[in-house]
Amino acid sequence: MNTELNSRAGRSHARLDVMNYLNEIAGRHPTAISLASGRPAEAFFDFEQWLRGVPDFVAHQARELGLPARNAFDLLAQYGRTNGIINDLVARQIAIDDGVDCSPQQILMANGAQEALSLLVTTLCQHPDDVLLVRSPCYIGITGIADLNGIELVHFGSESGDDERLAALLAQAVAGARRRGRNPRALYLVPTFDNPTGGVLDETTRRDIVSFCGANDIVVLEDNPYGMFRFEGEPVPSMHALDRSGCVIHVGTYSKTLCPAVRVGFAALPHRLFGDAAASDALMARLSQAKSFVSVNTSQLNQAVVGALLLSEQCSLRRLAEAPTAHYRGNRDAMIDCLAREFEDLQDLVRWNQPQGGFFLCVTLPFPFGRREADLCASRFGVLVMPLSFFALDDAQDRQVRLAFSNVPRERIAEAVRRFGAFVRGRLDEIEADETARSALQ
Amino acid sequence: MNTELNSRAGRSHARLDVMNYLNEIAGRHPTAISLASGRPAEAFFDFEQWLRGVPDFVAHQARELGLPARNAFDLLAQYGRTNGIINDLVARQIAIDDGVDCSPQQILMANGAQEALSLLVTTLCQHPDDVLLVRSPCYIGITGIADLNGIELVHFGSESGDDERLAALLAQAVAGARRRGRNPRALYLVPTFDNPTGGVLDETTRRDIVSFCGANDIVVLEDNPYGMFRFEGEPVPSMHALDRSGCVIHVGTYSKTLCPAVRVGFAALPHRLFGDAAASDALMARLSQAKSFVSVNTSQLNQAVVGALLLSEQCSLRRLAEAPTAHYRGNRDAMIDCLAREFEDLQDLVRWNQPQGGFFLCVTLPFPFGRREADLCASRFGVLVMPLSFFALDDAQDRQVRLAFSNVPRERIAEAVRRFGAFVRGRLDEIEADETARSALQ
Repeated sequence: MNTELNSRAGRSHARLDVMNYLNEIAGRHPTAISLASGRPAEAFFDFEQWLRGVPDFVAHQARELGLPARNAFDLLAQYGRTNGIINDLVARQIAIDDGVDCSPQQILMANGAQEALSLLVTTLCQHPDDVLLVRSPCYIGITGIADLNGIELVHFGSESGDDERLAALLAQAVAGARRRGRNPRALYLVPTFDNPTGGVLDETTRRDIVSFCGANDIVVLEDNPYGMFRFEGEPVPSMHALDRSGCVIHVGTYSKTLCPAVRVGFAALPHRLFGDAAASDALMARLSQAKSFVSVNTSQLNQAVVGALLLSEQCSLRRLAEAPTAHYRGNRDAMIDCLAREFEDLQDLVRWNQPQGGFFLCVTLPFPFGRREADLCASRFGVLVMPLSFFALDDAQDRQVRLAFSNVPRERIAEAVRRFGAFVRGRLDEIEADETARSALQ
Repeated sequence: MNTELNSRAGRSHARLDVMNYLNEIAGRHPTAISLASGRPAEAFFDFEQWLRGVPDFVAHQARELGLPARNAFDLLAQYGRTNGIINDLVARQIAIDDGVDCSPQQILMANGAQEALSLLVTTLCQHPDDVLLVRSPCYIGITGIADLNGIELVHFGSESGDDERLAALLAQAVAGARRRGRNPRALYLVPTFDNPTGGVLDETTRRDIVSFCGANDIVVLEDNPYGMFRFEGEPVPSMHALDRSGCVIHVGTYSKTLCPAVRVGFAALPHRLFGDAAASDALMARLSQAKSFVSVNTSQLNQAVVGALLLSEQCSLRRLAEAPTAHYRGNRDAMIDCLAREFEDLQDLVRWNQPQGGFFLCVTLPFPFGRREADLCASRFGVLVMPLSFFALDDAQDRQVRLAFSNVPRERIAEAVRRFGAFVRGRLDEIEADETARSALQ
């Protein structure tokens, strides 16, 4: 095995290991404050109440199908349609909330967006030469799917400032991959409030990427877990809404807007895949076949919980998302205030972005921050954070840290940032001491 | 591509297509009586009532974890442990009901047994030379997983009467695969009330197979969806219970004992995989990692529904299984009585087995029965049945048909068998007419 492959395998192994790492480190330091987990805030779960909606959904099904209620409940409890039973309600919700125009037949329901993405990536990338395009850093769930299935990842756009020329960098990456005999089949993006960076792609960049991918037979997997949580600024149209060539598959989830235990996500395919309606149907048939062998069908109970809420909310989650959005905005503001106070005297050395929504922000430090540093933060300073290098496919993010503000109690943010600040100051002191010692020796 | 590969690809394509076929043919002939679907009977679903148990499970969790009930509900609604949250209750249930002795740590919860099997097969067979051993005919969900992932299937024991020398045939198949440079990694079996045949492996055969697999580093995937539905005869110990070498993974589901919408299944690993505790832990870690990238975790809502029932039933499903078992026994008896009456004058030509439990029986006909014949049965005679060739990896079952008695209304069994009989008589008349015509020409 040559060095490049060794390094790739090592990185892939490290990526696969991140999920375990997070569980394990949280277990080892139970009193540490976690800024590591991008979970939704429990305060907005009304799960016991939501469960009471299931009979309402069943009554709706009974009316739609002209069945007695008892039979409709039996139908819900039985094996069901592989592609799902709430596709019509989901189609209406994403039309209203995300401007995604598609029919129920274009939607595949799944056990969370993760299963939808796993089905899409493995179905699209079947040949050994097929590669998946991602930005670096990238959501771990995607690199995990690729690593698990031996699918090569080609990354691009990892430097700060790359956003502005992202389509050009994508074209370069595609050309490079093709020169190596690879076939770029799909591009994964979280264009709105990215995980881990919190960034948003502007409309021009989205149009340029869609246009390039449409012309190059590359499917865009537009993942949108956080889009409902915008704190300020103008919404940017979804890539699916901007797509005229039929290259964008929109992926969504109810784990963040409702709660993770519903485990309901979906993929919305284009009407005509690269302009071809039969190709879109054929892709759906392949996904549906794969879904049937991976998990038969998505739990109809979970779909009923989501379906009942969509019915009672007239197929929009705007109203339900208001309170959590205000809460996440408040948490972000508190975190940024604390960072500004904590690092007031280090303004040139420690920087951070101010995301307009979502669950995460990123801090750039004047020194590398990796697993060793994250361990130290946890064990000596009592705060859990995620190095961006855990999400990275190259070394460009080695000085960055992801802070999740979604699930930390408001009243602990100041203390968490203080602890993180204490770590940073300690490290800077060490570095200065090392430099002084080195100068003294010279 | 050579002919053998072509034929393999064709057969694999046909197998992948069976799920669609079943849906499509049922849709095209809505008034046909279905003996094709192996679904559990809806009469025993009490889903609305079962859902009301969720708060009881949450209260149990709250007590176990020392949390207020509201916090326990939030914890249920949140992301959760990859390997599951009802593993302790499941471990007790399979110990009581199936004699499977394992700790909660050896159990991986999944979105139905199908997901557990998909994770197991793809995790165990990762190298291109790795092959999966199956009997022919075989549950379509397994051949589907293999075909979807490009995993080669090696089959054995497809002739009637092969049961008695099954371990010897397995050894031959393994030796043959090894001569071709293949590495048999796992063997899939439904030892009790097989799908599609309804057959049961006797204890001696189970012991011989476990002994051979233990000595040959082959993992036995013991799938047990129907074991709780025994109509008569002595229970045979599970292969997991007979396993001394640590080669059996026991796979179970609550889709048949409760209802399919719970989508909860599991895999129970051996304490020491081939005698090695670390190897068992390592396999669980790999399965858990794969599970996290395929679907994050099994819906905690669904686990709570199952958990609540296990708590209220003192971790045994015997009581709940009594009424459906009596019902399935009654359906089997009715079907066999009808077959005996229908084919009284064709006793030597048309035969069937009398399974001691489960959902299926098999009829052997004096002529080939394939997709064309199934289409005819549906369109002209109004009865849906499944050719065994749909489940087969060779031609040994070309004259056999699977009749599912689990989900057909009792009062329609006589009519369904009459319709099937009318098809058989019609086909026999045609064959006779052809033969007469041929004789006349000679």
